[in-house]
Amino acid sequence: MNKKITKPTLLIRKDICLRNICKMSEKAAKNGLMFRPHFKTHQSAEVGNWFKGFGVDRITVSSVSMARYFADHGWQDILIAFPLNVLEIEEINELAEQLSLSVLIESTNTLDILEENLKHNCNFYIKIDTGYHRTGMDSHNYAGIRELLDKSMHNPRLKFSGFLIHAGNTYEAKNVEEIKAIHDDSLYKLSKLKKEFSENYPDLILSIGDTPSCSLMNDFEGIDEIRPGNFVFYDLMQYRLGACKLEDIAVAIVCPVVARHPERQEIIIYGGAVHLSKDSLQQPDGSLDFGAIAMFDDQGWEQVSEDSYLRKLSQEHGVIRCSRDQFELIGIGDLLAVIPVHSCLSMNLMRSNYNIIE
Amino acid sequence: MNKKITKPTLLIRKDICLRNICKMSEKAAKNGLMFRPHFKTHQSAEVGNWFKGFGVDRITVSSVSMARYFADHGWQDILIAFPLNVLEIEEINELAEQLSLSVLIESTNTLDILEENLKHNCNFYIKIDTGYHRTGMDSHNYAGIRELLDKSMHNPRLKFSGFLIHAGNTYEAKNVEEIKAIHDDSLYKLSKLKKEFSENYPDLILSIGDTPSCSLMNDFEGIDEIRPGNFVFYDLMQYRLGACKLEDIAVAIVCPVVARHPERQEIIIYGGAVHLSKDSLQQPDGSLDFGAIAMFDDQGWEQVSEDSYLRKLSQEHGVIRCSRDQFELIGIGDLLAVIPVHSCLSMNLMRSNYNIIE
Repeated sequence: MNKKITKPTLLIRKDICLRNICKMSEKAAKNGLMFRPHFKTHQSAEVGNWFKGFGVDRITVSSVSMARYFADHGWQDILIAFPLNVLEIEEINELAEQLSLSVLIESTNTLDILEENLKHNCNFYIKIDTGYHRTGMDSHNYAGIRELLDKSMHNPRLKFSGFLIHAGNTYEAKNVEEIKAIHDDSLYKLSKLKKEFSENYPDLILSIGDTPSCSLMNDFEGIDEIRPGNFVFYDLMQYRLGACKLEDIAVAIVCPVVARHPERQEIIIYGGAVHLSKDSLQQPDGSLDFGAIAMFDDQGWEQVSEDSYLRKLSQEHGVIRCSRDQFELIGIGDLLAVIPVHSCLSMNLMRSNYNIIE
Repeated sequence: MNKKITKPTLLIRKDICLRNICKMSEKAAKNGLMFRPHFKTHQSAEVGNWFKGFGVDRITVSSVSMARYFADHGWQDILIAFPLNVLEIEEINELAEQLSLSVLIESTNTLDILEENLKHNCNFYIKIDTGYHRTGMDSHNYAGIRELLDKSMHNPRLKFSGFLIHAGNTYEAKNVEEIKAIHDDSLYKLSKLKKEFSENYPDLILSIGDTPSCSLMNDFEGIDEIRPGNFVFYDLMQYRLGACKLEDIAVAIVCPVVARHPERQEIIIYGGAVHLSKDSLQQPDGSLDFGAIAMFDDQGWEQVSEDSYLRKLSQEHGVIRCSRDQFELIGIGDLLAVIPVHSCLSMNLMRSNYNIIE
């Protein structure tokens, strides 16, 4: 830490990130899985480079712009894990010419447009829905999948890689058992798909992505590739899900204290929705929690306090409710660390203002 | 519109903004109020310039960084309507040297720090809490306010301007009557404060800020200054509060359609939490609404659809639920306009990617 902090600043603990990357890459290796981490969490060339030390040479991103950014920083094998946006075909062609690009397809309409407009070789995954119901083809829709694969054969530039899911429904799980049930169900549906289509596509791969499953599960039977992203930083949401320990969380947003309200034991920080995002967790009493609080000194943040939480956010204000004892320890001009509910969204907001703690 | 839209892009209708600014500045003039609009909503030098045509020469911002930005764009009278962050005293001194700077103070601790560190003349308002309970001194706390004013006299660089509130509790109102009740209560409390302190400070002013009150109320008895911000764009939240009509909303985020799900009449757009923010409205059935939908062509967005809404947001995905009829009109590669729930947060996210429709 060489820069004095005077306004909301995101800190990244490099040691924790490296440990998180190490653990996940070892898990992948142990289970014979290809490791294609999602870089939407950090969106940072510098953090991206840390993965190279663990042999990572293929990555996942969630937009064409992000693919362009990491291509410009030397990455040569990029999957855009987002339903292909045909309006960006020009940028997609530029990327496909330059590197090994993979895209996501889930409709024959998109194939029609690619048939006319795709100018370079490109791999594609079919996005499958195993129960999250955000997007993707239903995993039982064999006829539709077959139609899509048949149609893709008309386009010599397109090469089928396999089936890809994001089991985002694990984020709604109440405990590890529920995550396991979702994961097992995904594995079962994917294995049936593989069986159905492996005769014509013997090399097709199965790719899964969510951080809760990748962190907590040990059975990856039949899976070929994992694409977790959040695990590099983790956050309060993952902690509440049981997907990480508090000491695995690698980011905090350090915020100045600007006001104190003894009568309600509330601290006002300079740190709001434009720094943390409005993602929240619901507490047992129904109230919302926008972040956990830790004391901070120049060496970094301390243990998360059990006695306080961020109860409200405006554009720039954060309202911390705390215990009487903790309240007395905090003065105007102090810095507090907020452990974010959702590190991906906080990092997206703080891309121009973060420090790395080596 | 000269640039082809291929990814999420915020559009600003200049004609609507000018009409909104015109109405609010006429209301201020008619009621003998100083008009110090809040620029945190747009954070744009270009949009800021539109106010100059209506005689605006003093503005409000919510951070030292924003004050610096608008100072660099020629604004000479800036109020930072956020509890003074003593850690940024260096930047505050630079601003105070350069222009007419006003700050917000609500504690004697902050005064102590300023006594040692403030190097240039600076105006200050006392932040008063009339019921929102975010921050500020309780409006009944005459003894505390007197202590603060007495202490401020020791610092010859500080000049007391008056009392400032932000009645953000109007955002929780269920109808216009509730907004009126909050507004009337604020006026009453402020008038009592003025009476109490006007003997020693005959020129003290009363400043109020929230867009719902400034848009809907007509009685500003005793008030000297208004600082609304959101009204320049308005948004879905203001519409639901009754503070604007749909045709007063000046911004929309235009998003490409990337997938369709006929079985549940859902459309997936490239447009998520990193474009719109996670602010939401609760619907009567308890579900969340992240934005309203309008069809879009090169001329701009059409009337908001009654049959669809944005029901879910991930980092980059938006999930629109719509009627069967509307669903059939929307294809992959089309553009849809999303009317944001909270235009300030959307604009903050889209500062590097917006178009102005002249």
